[in-house]
Amino acid sequence: MPAALTDFSRMCVHTMTTKPLKLDEAIAAYTKEGIPGITVWRQHVEAVGAEEAGKMLRDSGLKVVSLCRGGFFPATSGTAREEARTENRRVIDEAAEIGAPLVVLVCGAHPEIDQQTARQQITDGIHSIIPHAKAAGVKLGIEVLHPMYAADRSAVCTMDQANNMILALGSEWTGLVVDVYHVWWDHFLRAEIQRARDTILGFHVCDWRVPTRDLLNDRGVMGDGCIKIREIRGWMEELGGFKGFIEVEIFSEECWGLDQTRYLKRLKNAYLKHV
Amino acid sequence: MPAALTDFSRMCVHTMTTKPLKLDEAIAAYTKEGIPGITVWRQHVEAVGAEEAGKMLRDSGLKVVSLCRGGFFPATSGTAREEARTENRRVIDEAAEIGAPLVVLVCGAHPEIDQQTARQQITDGIHSIIPHAKAAGVKLGIEVLHPMYAADRSAVCTMDQANNMILALGSEWTGLVVDVYHVWWDHFLRAEIQRARDTILGFHVCDWRVPTRDLLNDRGVMGDGCIKIREIRGWMEELGGFKGFIEVEIFSEECWGLDQTRYLKRLKNAYLKHV
Repeated sequence: MPAALTDFSRMCVHTMTTKPLKLDEAIAAYTKEGIPGITVWRQHVEAVGAEEAGKMLRDSGLKVVSLCRGGFFPATSGTAREEARTENRRVIDEAAEIGAPLVVLVCGAHPEIDQQTARQQITDGIHSIIPHAKAAGVKLGIEVLHPMYAADRSAVCTMDQANNMILALGSEWTGLVVDVYHVWWDHFLRAEIQRARDTILGFHVCDWRVPTRDLLNDRGVMGDGCIKIREIRGWMEELGGFKGFIEVEIFSEECWGLDQTRYLKRLKNAYLKHV
Repeated sequence: MPAALTDFSRMCVHTMTTKPLKLDEAIAAYTKEGIPGITVWRQHVEAVGAEEAGKMLRDSGLKVVSLCRGGFFPATSGTAREEARTENRRVIDEAAEIGAPLVVLVCGAHPEIDQQTARQQITDGIHSIIPHAKAAGVKLGIEVLHPMYAADRSAVCTMDQANNMILALGSEWTGLVVDVYHVWWDHFLRAEIQRARDTILGFHVCDWRVPTRDLLNDRGVMGDGCIKIREIRGWMEELGGFKGFIEVEIFSEECWGLDQTRYLKRLKNAYLKHV
């Protein structure tokens, strides 16, 4: 088990974590709290436009950790799959414009497409946009999603699948994003983190509430659930060689209803205590 | 892909599928519809007592496929773990009394107990009740649960884990229960069914709705979701050597609100069309 973190130098917050805040409000709030990293969701960019968002972020001095999210490659027609690739190239351009070195991919799934075919379509889709990512200097992070999203959000639902996909792609422009919420239950987690060594591009934290009341928007603040977050951070660092930002990504109707400034202070406490 | 089923000779319905019906009403309804198998949930036994339930079931001529459910072995104290074992011996006695040859185990989990320790406690718990099961002539079926239940319902959340556990237990009185709802997403499903050959004790069907609106009670009728049920049945039969009852187990607030007699007819149609 690693020692507790003693400062916020690696802390990053997702704008979706503080969803009620507009981008300028989020930037101001994170800055005031001394949180150095920000991961920006597209809906927060779209409200002001990528150019203006990029200016605001550069002026803030915050480190843009990633842009969420691209992906959603599988589709039942070739036309729709091509549209998805075009859209992902737009996401890459947007990332470059706001200064994000990474696009997080929620790879996609479709209830009418079997999982294996969906994964092949994902691999093919990512492969086709790698040249664009390379030209833009933006990496592509394959996020493993929990199997409860396997039918509609991602056919990449185990670390094993993501690692195999990254091996198959064989590009330094693709890597892995590990979110404890999606992978904590996996008995191969430790081994797969070791296998992913030096290809890990992102690390997301939150907690799994017991009981979980909603499939999407009932994530917990670190410490409010059952995930051994610090142990996993230890594996990420020692076995995975990961030293980057630790991103707090919490979708929670409950927490979105709180005063967001006080909520950020609570997240900072939880970060030191449980991450 | 196997041929469609052409009759109801292997069809079984769980009393929880028609939760609003009391045991006598369920027995009457299944009999009227020509559904030969019934899996009884404990709450439907408790309402009348095991002796009376056993008499009703024997008189009905229905085949009692299993009793749901035992399990829930992990606990934070030795006393609580011993109580769980005692309770499971009671479940076995109840199964014997109602003529059920199988107890389905939802093995249990606890947010404060790590998954590996929980699985060890489950293995130890099952091991300790095998003599009781053998004496009663009742088998113990380890059901794999979806990883979204890993914190509170079952630390056995992949086929791989269940097969390893069955191997470790090494008793003909334990085997596997496969529910398509819990395992459809697993890319090792086909291989693990093959590995489970001749240890498969039960097969549950329903469907995974897209989107799924609730973690517990939003299962779909076969055909109303994304699971390739017939393909999985093919694997169960050809690779797993399973020829037993096919049990319709659907927890659904929506379906519990329907007229249950009409609902049973719909289940029969879905059974022929999609299983």
